[in-house]
Amino acid sequence: MRVRYRQGADELLAAYPNYVAQNPEEWKGRWHERFGNQNPIHIEIGTGKGQFITEMAKAHPEINYIGVEMQVSVVSMALDRLVEANISNLQLLHVDGSALTNYFADNEVDQIYLNFSDPWPKTRHEKRRLTFKTFLATDEQILKPNGEIHFKTDNQGLFEYSLASFSQYGMIIQKVWLDLHHSDYEGNIMTEYEEKFSSRGQRIYRVEARFQDKTKK
Amino acid sequence: MRVRYRQGADELLAAYPNYVAQNPEEWKGRWHERFGNQNPIHIEIGTGKGQFITEMAKAHPEINYIGVEMQVSVVSMALDRLVEANISNLQLLHVDGSALTNYFADNEVDQIYLNFSDPWPKTRHEKRRLTFKTFLATDEQILKPNGEIHFKTDNQGLFEYSLASFSQYGMIIQKVWLDLHHSDYEGNIMTEYEEKFSSRGQRIYRVEARFQDKTKK
Repeated sequence: MRVRYRQGADELLAAYPNYVAQNPEEWKGRWHERFGNQNPIHIEIGTGKGQFITEMAKAHPEINYIGVEMQVSVVSMALDRLVEANISNLQLLHVDGSALTNYFADNEVDQIYLNFSDPWPKTRHEKRRLTFKTFLATDEQILKPNGEIHFKTDNQGLFEYSLASFSQYGMIIQKVWLDLHHSDYEGNIMTEYEEKFSSRGQRIYRVEARFQDKTKK
Repeated sequence: MRVRYRQGADELLAAYPNYVAQNPEEWKGRWHERFGNQNPIHIEIGTGKGQFITEMAKAHPEINYIGVEMQVSVVSMALDRLVEANISNLQLLHVDGSALTNYFADNEVDQIYLNFSDPWPKTRHEKRRLTFKTFLATDEQILKPNGEIHFKTDNQGLFEYSLASFSQYGMIIQKVWLDLHHSDYEGNIMTEYEEKFSSRGQRIYRVEARFQDKTKK
């Protein structure tokens, strides 16, 4: 999702250094210190306007969340929500999701969420899909051994692609939902996009996949 | 699919020993001899009335096909088709699909088809699903290294289960179709069941998954 520049977005981020780190490279390997506890760290790559990650953080105070988003205007909208929620277990990270090893040390992250990532449907754009092998290699590096990716999308082609991509990378498909909103899955928290498209009758697909223990490779 | 006994079914099978082996154990490890060539061997487990396997055999004369079916009345219906088709690259095997190692030697089979297998939706019947790990172990044993299973179903629950089961067994998901009849897949040959249910608007799911090289394990 590309959005128009929101007036004052940069200034808003600068006004909340406690929620959006000013020099995020400095926190690489030190996120537990920043959160002030040893709770697990879950990150969402492409956090958008932040509904999912904010509601997750409210529902699971025992987990630290970090929402990663590249576009400043979008981060600023997620920040509005975070300020409103006034919680201490959520941080926003205004960086490019393809360079995550600059901001997270090896094994620093417990779980990764990908929600409604850009499908990049053309074959020549395969490398841009967040479930392409180069992104999975980065994810694996920053995740703990056996770390998991939880991925939701309404895009059939991206979901088909991603199941095969996960498996061919060597990940294990733990569980699959081919129609999440008509399943027995409990506690689903919707993104803004998910609310909009599922209300139009679009199926939502979901998968939980985990990396195999790196030490065994 | 359970069907009523068809009068004369046993006699029909006995009348065509060239199409339905009388003592199938005797052909274990000798199927190439029975076909009279060294072409690859593809088997369908639960071949039903035989439309799929007969049409596949007509379309691919360079491959040997074996349709495995437990119910004599159903085998007899597939035999009707085979007699009508009058082809030499298709055999029917009237045995229980759970005991395939009695009829196939290790590495004797090149590919396995599972089409619209019984979903056994209750959790306590998981062990009866043809994509449960014990069946996969048998499949792996009779398949060549890197042998593939090609699986189609209209049953969402069975498909969700099977993707995870394949992956957790250690198989690689090669490619997934979440709506086969509205995809770019070419050369699909429908089963009787597939024709009936897709005409009612049911989605058909398909996956190609392969075993990893046994020598690497």
